[in-house]
Amino acid sequence: MKSDLDALMQARNLDAILITGPAFHNPAMYYLTGGVHVSEADLIKKRGSAPILYHKTMERDEAARTGLALQDYAGFDYSGLIKQYRGNAVLASAALYQMMLTEQGITSGRLAIYGQSDAGNAYAIFSALQTLLPDLTLVGEAGDSLLLLARLTKSADEIERIRRMGQITTAVVGQTAEYLANHTVEAGVLIAPDGYPLTIGTVKKRINLWLAERGVENPEGTIFSIGRDAAVPHSVGNPSDLLRLGQTIVFDIYPCEAGGGYFYDLTRTWCLGYAPDETLQLYEDVLAVFRQILSEMQPGGFYPHYHSRACDLFEELGHPTLRTNPRTTDGFVHGLGHGVGLNIHERPSYGNNATHDDCLSPGAVFTLEPGLYYPERGIGVRLEDTLWVDPEGGIRPLVEYPLDLVIPMSKVKK
Amino acid sequence: MKSDLDALMQARNLDAILITGPAFHNPAMYYLTGGVHVSEADLIKKRGSAPILYHKTMERDEAARTGLALQDYAGFDYSGLIKQYRGNAVLASAALYQMMLTEQGITSGRLAIYGQSDAGNAYAIFSALQTLLPDLTLVGEAGDSLLLLARLTKSADEIERIRRMGQITTAVVGQTAEYLANHTVEAGVLIAPDGYPLTIGTVKKRINLWLAERGVENPEGTIFSIGRDAAVPHSVGNPSDLLRLGQTIVFDIYPCEAGGGYFYDLTRTWCLGYAPDETLQLYEDVLAVFRQILSEMQPGGFYPHYHSRACDLFEELGHPTLRTNPRTTDGFVHGLGHGVGLNIHERPSYGNNATHDDCLSPGAVFTLEPGLYYPERGIGVRLEDTLWVDPEGGIRPLVEYPLDLVIPMSKVKK
Repeated sequence: MKSDLDALMQARNLDAILITGPAFHNPAMYYLTGGVHVSEADLIKKRGSAPILYHKTMERDEAARTGLALQDYAGFDYSGLIKQYRGNAVLASAALYQMMLTEQGITSGRLAIYGQSDAGNAYAIFSALQTLLPDLTLVGEAGDSLLLLARLTKSADEIERIRRMGQITTAVVGQTAEYLANHTVEAGVLIAPDGYPLTIGTVKKRINLWLAERGVENPEGTIFSIGRDAAVPHSVGNPSDLLRLGQTIVFDIYPCEAGGGYFYDLTRTWCLGYAPDETLQLYEDVLAVFRQILSEMQPGGFYPHYHSRACDLFEELGHPTLRTNPRTTDGFVHGLGHGVGLNIHERPSYGNNATHDDCLSPGAVFTLEPGLYYPERGIGVRLEDTLWVDPEGGIRPLVEYPLDLVIPMSKVKK
Repeated sequence: MKSDLDALMQARNLDAILITGPAFHNPAMYYLTGGVHVSEADLIKKRGSAPILYHKTMERDEAARTGLALQDYAGFDYSGLIKQYRGNAVLASAALYQMMLTEQGITSGRLAIYGQSDAGNAYAIFSALQTLLPDLTLVGEAGDSLLLLARLTKSADEIERIRRMGQITTAVVGQTAEYLANHTVEAGVLIAPDGYPLTIGTVKKRINLWLAERGVENPEGTIFSIGRDAAVPHSVGNPSDLLRLGQTIVFDIYPCEAGGGYFYDLTRTWCLGYAPDETLQLYEDVLAVFRQILSEMQPGGFYPHYHSRACDLFEELGHPTLRTNPRTTDGFVHGLGHGVGLNIHERPSYGNNATHDDCLSPGAVFTLEPGLYYPERGIGVRLEDTLWVDPEGGIRPLVEYPLDLVIPMSKVKK
């Protein structure tokens, strides 16, 4: 949580942190500014002190909404720097950072850097800054970043924001199921009121509309894929595909608050009308693993242990996994889940790469999403809920939604 | 245009470029991949060769939609690298890049880096890579980047995509005007059908809905601000503000294609019912400058010249400008416009900072947006169209929409 930041900085021997970029669609900056429409900013926080936000004059009102101490970039003469460095924006920007950091008394010790930026810009500007301030060590963290560790557990306020996104997400999933169920079926294909077959593209457009009606964003899109596409985990679905009875649909939806705030993540697998035996068997295997893992999870448990347990269970059921064959595209071919928050994928991690010791802790929000995929058979099944560990150590979905496979169709013409 | 890339690389003595990050909401990667749902990728292009896209196994189908040559990250043993570097993700990532670049024969010469990334990650990983490949010079460009220069002019296909976004944008602006005009007015305030006053928050929700209905995104939000807020250029508007006759509304709308594709940008200033004389005068000043500059623009013209001309004109009319006082918040307080494309703000630049020579060229797409702001008087006026230079050198809005100030209200109760 945010309140852990100073302790985490101490543990990593960081004297200050710098976050750059806009305050929206930029999780690091959003985390400390809370969601405002500031398009360009730098936030500097010394250990033990409150953050300072540098902003443009034009955005002073929006910057003020953060409640943070503010500084206007106009206090520095950037145009003068550009002239001084003969148009070299890398050197001018590095010199501007030097001024800001000097103003904050940060010219030695260790400074860590975060925030969305152009990779080349960041490499060039901070390399130049490092030269300008040789006594200050610039630190870039990959993977195990301080902010991601702070964000491993969520405050009550963050939980409520994610739960609200869960309520919106499940409402839209329910609306989608009802919408599909109300279609007429002819020759095994769903037919829209205009007499033409319903397409995946139309369904996805409705989903976006229902999300927009509820005031949320869908920046990463939605997976709504059928048949062979459903059997490739990240295939988002072909807009011109038709909806046929008995084919598997993987519906993975992950909207966020407007402006790039908190996400929710949920997947259901559906068959319209009926499920073929082969699909039903895979669904039951996935459901069994989902339920078994959920029953085994307990506070203090190590996330990679549960991924490994899911591999055990799938392998016992006769399915290949990435553990038995790292390049398999059949069977259980992805991780068991991921943390959810200001990023759709964040810590905690189920990955066993020896860089972390993420354990189930109160305040953690993460997905559980076992799946099975057989592209050549045209079947994919995934079930995913966003779970949380409550303050008493209970582990459950933030919002409940039925896991049913079959959506009954009543208007079937022979 | 994309076809300029090799020549631009040659002019900058770049042997190769590397673009990192997702293929959506990441303009550099979007530019070369065209809009696919690939969440993590690296694109490498050698001068004179076609690009290669590195992707995850799970995203092979989406990656294939780019039509680019593909390589799967699974060809490298990242887990092994993480073990080798004892969990240090910075060093493991740098080693992975070393392998990818070596596989592509890029171990000497100059390599430029682009794409959305965490700033600290990028600084740390590319610093480590520079150490691993000392004969290769890693280049980060700020401001004047190769890709932004290529994107200075748009192909016919890009123009059509931006024009389509303009048609959607103007349709939603028209729908908003009609929606407001159909409200009842009581005591100078717009009243919704439920009997309560209409708020800015409700209007903005409707705008988002109308955009979603048309299948586009609005990742940066909309400015719809009234009164004093309208007088601060980047204030997005207070959701609880009411809509009062005679107050100025600044409506600045800039949606993009789903997935972070091409943007459009348009601003109108409205007064509901009537315009006070003071507002009308400012509006006429802004409109006069808008029309005068549009009439003066011609192919080959230097963008900063037109900004400077706008300052001349506003100063002649008695308004302060950033040229007369760099810290003024009254008068003409921002640039005259900006390029529009995969970023809402991109090259060409009207800024006169000696780093560029951007001139009006066929295929350029950019805004013209003079404005006047008087926060203490509670008035702001801005008029903005997205213009383009057609192949014959004609300069006009990509899509026409009336510049009218007053929206007549018919249902006024005394």
